[in-house]
Amino acid sequence: MFYIPVILGTVRRNRESSKVAKFALDCLQEFDRVKTELLDLKEMDLPMMEERLRFRDDAPASVIAFSETVKQADAIVIVTPEYNGSYPGVLKNAMEYLKDEYRRKPFGIITVSAADTGGILCLSALRQMVLYLGGVPIPASLLVSRVRESFDSQGKPADPGMAKRAKVFFDELLWFTEAFSTQKKKDSSTG
Amino acid sequence: MFYIPVILGTVRRNRESSKVAKFALDCLQEFDRVKTELLDLKEMDLPMMEERLRFRDDAPASVIAFSETVKQADAIVIVTPEYNGSYPGVLKNAMEYLKDEYRRKPFGIITVSAADTGGILCLSALRQMVLYLGGVPIPASLLVSRVRESFDSQGKPADPGMAKRAKVFFDELLWFTEAFSTQKKKDSSTG
Amino acid sequence: MFYIPVILGTVRRNRESSKVAKFALDCLQEFDRVKTELLDLKEMDLPMMEERLRFRDDAPASVIAFSETVKQADAIVIVTPEYNGSYPGVLKNAMEYLKDEYRRKPFGIITVSAADTGGILCLSALRQMVLYLGGVPIPASLLVSRVRESFDSQGKPADPGMAKRAKVFFDELLWFTEAFSTQKKKDSSTG
Amino acid sequence: MFYIPVILGTVRRNRESSKVAKFALDCLQEFDRVKTELLDLKEMDLPMMEERLRFRDDAPASVIAFSETVKQADAIVIVTPEYNGSYPGVLKNAMEYLKDEYRRKPFGIITVSAADTGGILCLSALRQMVLYLGGVPIPASLLVSRVRESFDSQGKPADPGMAKRAKVFFDELLWFTEAFSTQKKKDSSTG
Repeated sequence: MFYIPVILGTVRRNRESSKVAKFALDCLQEFDRVKTELLDLKEMDLPMMEERLRFRDDAPASVIAFSETVKQADAIVIVTPEYNGSYPGVLKNAMEYLKDEYRRKPFGIITVSAADTGGILCLSALRQMVLYLGGVPIPASLLVSRVRESFDSQGKPADPGMAKRAKVFFDELLWFTEAFSTQKKKDSSTG
Repeated sequence: MFYIPVILGTVRRNRESSKVAKFALDCLQEFDRVKTELLDLKEMDLPMMEERLRFRDDAPASVIAFSETVKQADAIVIVTPEYNGSYPGVLKNAMEYLKDEYRRKPFGIITVSAADTGGILCLSALRQMVLYLGGVPIPASLLVSRVRESFDSQGKPADPGMAKRAKVFFDELLWFTEAFSTQKKKDSSTG
Repeated sequence: MFYIPVILGTVRRNRESSKVAKFALDCLQEFDRVKTELLDLKEMDLPMMEERLRFRDDAPASVIAFSETVKQADAIVIVTPEYNGSYPGVLKNAMEYLKDEYRRKPFGIITVSAADTGGILCLSALRQMVLYLGGVPIPASLLVSRVRESFDSQGKPADPGMAKRAKVFFDELLWFTEAFSTQKKKDSSTG
Repeated sequence: MFYIPVILGTVRRNRESSKVAKFALDCLQEFDRVKTELLDLKEMDLPMMEERLRFRDDAPASVIAFSETVKQADAIVIVTPEYNGSYPGVLKNAMEYLKDEYRRKPFGIITVSAADTGGILCLSALRQMVLYLGGVPIPASLLVSRVRESFDSQGKPADPGMAKRAKVFFDELLWFTEAFSTQKKKDSSTG
């Protein structure tokens, strides 16, 4: 059983990405061997990062809970809009609290845009950050363009092609999740 | 007279970049025709960005003040540490509130690092964001490596070479500031 | 009179970007005060860069000619397809020969893609390189998506919106070209 | 047994990176289960990319040989200098010929610089390209600063710390190589 939470990387009013996050949760639940959950930055309400968790002895409970969740994850999905050619500040702020929690974990990144470019600059920036933090962005991508029209409020995609593209994306994520999990078990058995 | 405020892009406890911000203010004050001021994100205490300023009718006073300041600026200096190969979330969050305020303004970016790489990945990421927002990052850079040892608490650099490099950097910033100001005046006189 | 050559950044067989380069030349010729010219990497046929021009005393004539042209330019337009999320190797190779020739010159970058993303990752990568080399990428962009259908063989755009977007883009390029030229004249008169 | 070739990404005269490539080959040969080999772009002498290999029926023998080698590789090491804040054009040009050959293969990237920043911008740019091509850059990095002094002509590092850092880097590369190989075997046995 793999635990793969979905981080929703925006706290914007009327954010459209929440529909895509719902869709991602649905996709993950199709896999028998996956347990998933939404990590909504709006509900988590992490304060501005004054110091990384491992250097604090007065950390907010919300940050500790975030750390525990990421620690337990076998892989992580991020659903995020692109703001000004990159990730939202609120998402970067959240990611900054942790480090070792990300180590050798595959990241599936789904970017969302109101325009035609599907948030590809945000994908690019997030991949850099994930690698820097010790995680592994998978080469597969899932770009969502014109999000307003492309998903209904329940997270159902208007375009049937989206479900197909999502299948390829999540299969790829599972491939890496399984590869890394197997290798980690081998490590601990020989350790 | 040019107004060139200095944004300090971190709210971290014991942040070392504040020494570099002091240094930047000193450098700018050497120019007779420059008026400067510190915009400290810690004091400004902007909330997580729920919507851009131009789409809000309930904006916090701090955000409105930030907008007014940037609007009046002829150029902008950013002093910021590099976190995880990019800019701090808190800085991205602040920048996201505005857009037209940045238009055709030169940005001088000073990046700060505890390591040897001088925050060059942060420089690279900030340049992208600035261009995306309509501002113009100048080609000159001022990288600060091993900040702990390289500046004292008053913002005096330990290495005399730093003052020289800073001179080249700020002269270049002024060159662009003057070029754009002259052109804007021409626009308004023919407008 | 401003001299603004157009670099075509690909040597691919059946390259579609040459249609966009034609369009760019047409747009520039609309300005009375602009002289333009195509710099086609295919015709220039620069060898793989073994050493930068300024360190060679056995430089190929084609490289010397390229240097002379860029030196005379008041601004530079690049028209290039995106390959694998970045610029073509052949374009990077050409740019590497020079450095001071680019200093304080505005770059208008037009990216071309067969897909929907308009080559925006290539734009992003080129902007970084231009800044690194001392040039100034303008904040305006001109993205060409689905190039096969969007331009005819004479370089006429299928979508009338493209001409409008191009007008904004080239006006912006001229604004920067004029701003920098004025400032350079001031420099030399006070020098 | 894993086959992990080392690509040397420059054809510059007097290139210093060749010393680092020697060092990388030595490091890989320390592993009993690794077979390695140098792929020197200078010797390979690939022409400017006019079309990707899979779309050509008149491909040069050198390109076909490159494809075969990468196809057989279990992982790939790239040793490359940074030119103008990115990878050399000649390296990008070589990479562009192929695509499926890179799929799900770990890439260990070693960047080389004459300056203090260790080629970190080149690392960043290469990671993006590798992901785009379907490969997987490992999160570990090996930056070589001030290459002229830091390696002798036989590829022996001056700083003993380098050997330690290299050990961590190559162990990490082997971890991913083994993880992916195991998973691929599982695929083919259930296929």
